[in-house]
Amino acid sequence: MMHGLMMNYPLTVPAILKRAETLYGSKEIVTEQPDKSWHRYTYGDLAQRAKKLAIALLGLGVQSGDRVATLCWNRHPHLEAYFGVTAAGAVVHTLNPRLHPDDLTYIVNDAEDKVLLVDDCLLPLLEQFHRRVSCAHVVVISSAAQKPAGMLDYEQLLAEAKAEEFRYPDLDEQQAVAMCYTSGTTGKPKGVLYSHRALALQAMALGMVDALGICEADVVIPVVPLFHANGWNLPFACALAGSKQVYLGPHLDPPALLRTLERERATLAAGVPTIWLAVLQELDKNPRAYDLSRLRTIMTGGAAAPRGMIEGYQERHGLKVLHIWGMTEMSPLGSTGYLPCALRESPSSDQYACRAKQGVPAAFIEFRARGPAGLVPWDGKSVGELEVRGPWVARAYYNCPEGAAAFTDDGWFRTGDIVTIDARGCIEIQDRAKDVIKSGGEWISSVALEGALMGHPAVAEAAVVAVEHVKWQERPLAVVVLKEGKTASAEELLAFLAPHFARWWLPEAIVFVDEIPRTSAGKFLKRALRERFRNYLNQELLQKPI
Amino acid sequence: MMHGLMMNYPLTVPAILKRAETLYGSKEIVTEQPDKSWHRYTYGDLAQRAKKLAIALLGLGVQSGDRVATLCWNRHPHLEAYFGVTAAGAVVHTLNPRLHPDDLTYIVNDAEDKVLLVDDCLLPLLEQFHRRVSCAHVVVISSAAQKPAGMLDYEQLLAEAKAEEFRYPDLDEQQAVAMCYTSGTTGKPKGVLYSHRALALQAMALGMVDALGICEADVVIPVVPLFHANGWNLPFACALAGSKQVYLGPHLDPPALLRTLERERATLAAGVPTIWLAVLQELDKNPRAYDLSRLRTIMTGGAAAPRGMIEGYQERHGLKVLHIWGMTEMSPLGSTGYLPCALRESPSSDQYACRAKQGVPAAFIEFRARGPAGLVPWDGKSVGELEVRGPWVARAYYNCPEGAAAFTDDGWFRTGDIVTIDARGCIEIQDRAKDVIKSGGEWISSVALEGALMGHPAVAEAAVVAVEHVKWQERPLAVVVLKEGKTASAEELLAFLAPHFARWWLPEAIVFVDEIPRTSAGKFLKRALRERFRNYLNQELLQKPI
Repeated sequence: MMHGLMMNYPLTVPAILKRAETLYGSKEIVTEQPDKSWHRYTYGDLAQRAKKLAIALLGLGVQSGDRVATLCWNRHPHLEAYFGVTAAGAVVHTLNPRLHPDDLTYIVNDAEDKVLLVDDCLLPLLEQFHRRVSCAHVVVISSAAQKPAGMLDYEQLLAEAKAEEFRYPDLDEQQAVAMCYTSGTTGKPKGVLYSHRALALQAMALGMVDALGICEADVVIPVVPLFHANGWNLPFACALAGSKQVYLGPHLDPPALLRTLERERATLAAGVPTIWLAVLQELDKNPRAYDLSRLRTIMTGGAAAPRGMIEGYQERHGLKVLHIWGMTEMSPLGSTGYLPCALRESPSSDQYACRAKQGVPAAFIEFRARGPAGLVPWDGKSVGELEVRGPWVARAYYNCPEGAAAFTDDGWFRTGDIVTIDARGCIEIQDRAKDVIKSGGEWISSVALEGALMGHPAVAEAAVVAVEHVKWQERPLAVVVLKEGKTASAEELLAFLAPHFARWWLPEAIVFVDEIPRTSAGKFLKRALRERFRNYLNQELLQKPI
Repeated sequence: MMHGLMMNYPLTVPAILKRAETLYGSKEIVTEQPDKSWHRYTYGDLAQRAKKLAIALLGLGVQSGDRVATLCWNRHPHLEAYFGVTAAGAVVHTLNPRLHPDDLTYIVNDAEDKVLLVDDCLLPLLEQFHRRVSCAHVVVISSAAQKPAGMLDYEQLLAEAKAEEFRYPDLDEQQAVAMCYTSGTTGKPKGVLYSHRALALQAMALGMVDALGICEADVVIPVVPLFHANGWNLPFACALAGSKQVYLGPHLDPPALLRTLERERATLAAGVPTIWLAVLQELDKNPRAYDLSRLRTIMTGGAAAPRGMIEGYQERHGLKVLHIWGMTEMSPLGSTGYLPCALRESPSSDQYACRAKQGVPAAFIEFRARGPAGLVPWDGKSVGELEVRGPWVARAYYNCPEGAAAFTDDGWFRTGDIVTIDARGCIEIQDRAKDVIKSGGEWISSVALEGALMGHPAVAEAAVVAVEHVKWQERPLAVVVLKEGKTASAEELLAFLAPHFARWWLPEAIVFVDEIPRTSAGKFLKRALRERFRNYLNQELLQKPI
């Protein structure tokens, strides 16, 4: 092989810290404190404290590749951990304080976290699993609070460390830099182990115009916890570009968020659709109360953004919502729903239809979708499970042989999302693989049927699940909650659906219930419905011959 | 070392072609033909023909890493070579048709080009060195013209190749992908051998907002030859982002260029300052003749852009000029002179002062400057030779041990540019290293003195060069051409300079001449002046004791 004669310059997270320190030392980082006051400092300050943290961790015996866990909200020490742990050559492992202590126990033990950094306000949570895990050191992030015996004090550690002893390490870009566990609804949590290369490359990709276009002039407000997929990689993308970063505390309320967007002159805010739905309600109530003239983009991801929300922001408030799709296994950026130039002069309804989709793959990310009969054509209609590959996609889970089922033999990651792909490579998520109904060798989208049912004026909620069928393997069954005081028969609802779906898509039965069970995150607990109704049709069939 | 568990997905140029074919198949590529007509086709067409070219080259015996040279203007087959040669796993080596046949002979033999693609209109040039080089095959890009015996026909090769036989190769991202020779004014031309990784990464970097922000909605007109540093990497950056590309023929005239910008609704045009100076004159003459409302940025690089030009475009035509600095050895992007947010509400004079500088380093590029006493502080005043490193910077020249002097012991590339660096990392080029005057352990910028002298109403041209001095090693000597009918004495010019420079910066002598010798590119031939005046002061000193 003839090699190019270019420098071997590894793409690493500490190179981003060095850049931010060198070029953007005076740019601001703003975080909300537990007492609702605002903490302000600069990238220069961040770098100084991150270097001290690195020195302190090395002093505690942390070695290259060791995992250092965080159990923290979005405060500036959490950012310092992002940069300080990684500058020590260690792996920053963000724990989700919203998980059950049993899950946290499993995750900390599986990751073999050597040090755990914890916000003092989360000590009661740590108390519930501390004795079941074996971190060598617990460091409490506290200003004055009394810390439990045997725990170290974050500020004291930093005070004793000398930043000038810090040297940027020589790292291999393939080295591990960060770790997150996916909180799947089934099975054990599975660890994703990011490389420096993956996060550094994605930080570049997030600066590209058709992704988020993060740049030096941006004021970015990640309304996403830093423990969710590395805060969507925004801390590193912002540091690479030199953007001002603003983080809010864990208790979000729309007016406070809007006041922060105005005060900090935010240009880009990122969060899940539920946040932006609540913010839209507040804006609709008080349309002229906030000056959001600087806000160029509201980025939303983590779940499908309703088209009505995208339209509402644009039509009523002149604000652009950008739809993003990603996964913890993708660091997390997969695709962005930017408006292609062919549609820029199209009717707004066509534009919204496009922007409500999950978008086209980011640079160097590849998509394909596999249906029951193999890879599906990119016709915007054929459905299949989305498979992806690219430089920031996981190739395996940590310490988890059973996770191999998530990867194809030729090395693509099976996302578990059922999608269509249109001619320009834009995906639209139809369902989760476990929720799609596999009927006679064809797939039926539960999400599409649910959406249509919830469009009926009498329906409050609808969940569609697969039930067993002797002939078709699976058939859709709809579980419906009617609105208070409204009535509708199964026949009426089926007739309502009929014009919009192929005949074989229509639910085999509609069951009316008072309530649909939900997960702690508020999603339908379809697993419980599937179990409850598994034999519903077969029992019926036993009673009436086909 | 603990590796991250991310996919091994190489960053390669064929991955860019595959992306363009898959996602942007219907986007347009427009090139001007020799008969001044316009050729239009799509990325889909480009990909088909590039694949056929790859198959044809493999059929000719081209193997991985073999060099395939091009001697072409900016026509669509040249783009096909960019993508087709590299998709075959070979190295595309662009030759500059403006070089002397002796230089071309040296370059083709040094690179050991196996195949040479030549535009039929450049056959007379090839004729001048064809017998002195030993390419196995010459392929003539021609529609109908009779080709010389023994040469192959490009269109015929493509017609016989089957695109469906093409398989995207498995490549290592470190593999060589392209080659350019620097045309230094001294010494032999030196080859720079790019890796897939370097060009793919820079294609991403060019899509970042604070670089060029190339995106799907862009219509990019590279007014730069494809044989200059890979057309500034624009073909690959545009293909990665999905931008429409438009290329003009070799004979540029400003009205035709402006008509093309208008007709193609160009959003971004890139070229050297001399082009944009000529275009500005035409715009000033006919300010309302062209609709350039789509043109978001005029990018200029390759030489320093005069501040007056940047101001002229902005103030008189509302057009933004973006200053870029780079080198063939940097693939070529080094820095961009975007306006930082701290200056966005500053007086326009401060903004222009910033935008006239060469800018801050691109993502993952590092700068430092070394003066006579070591690395210089970033104070915007201290001058030193710029040293750079990063993932798309050369680490060596091809087959050129004597080129090692261009690299420091710790692996940085010595650019040969004398710069200041200010507190936010922005460079301003003061001189070329070979032109700077090294006087008593301090450096004096010849460019600064020349600029000041040319501000005198009687001075038409001024070149300042180092001459030997027994005490100070070197001293500045100014060579001045007066404007017709004007007069000025040496004393008068020195008095004119005095308020603006430290006393020891002032030229030791001023020599009046009728003409300053120039290079073929129109630059002052300072080497000739240095030789002519080398002993000027010593002779003087011999005559009068110090």
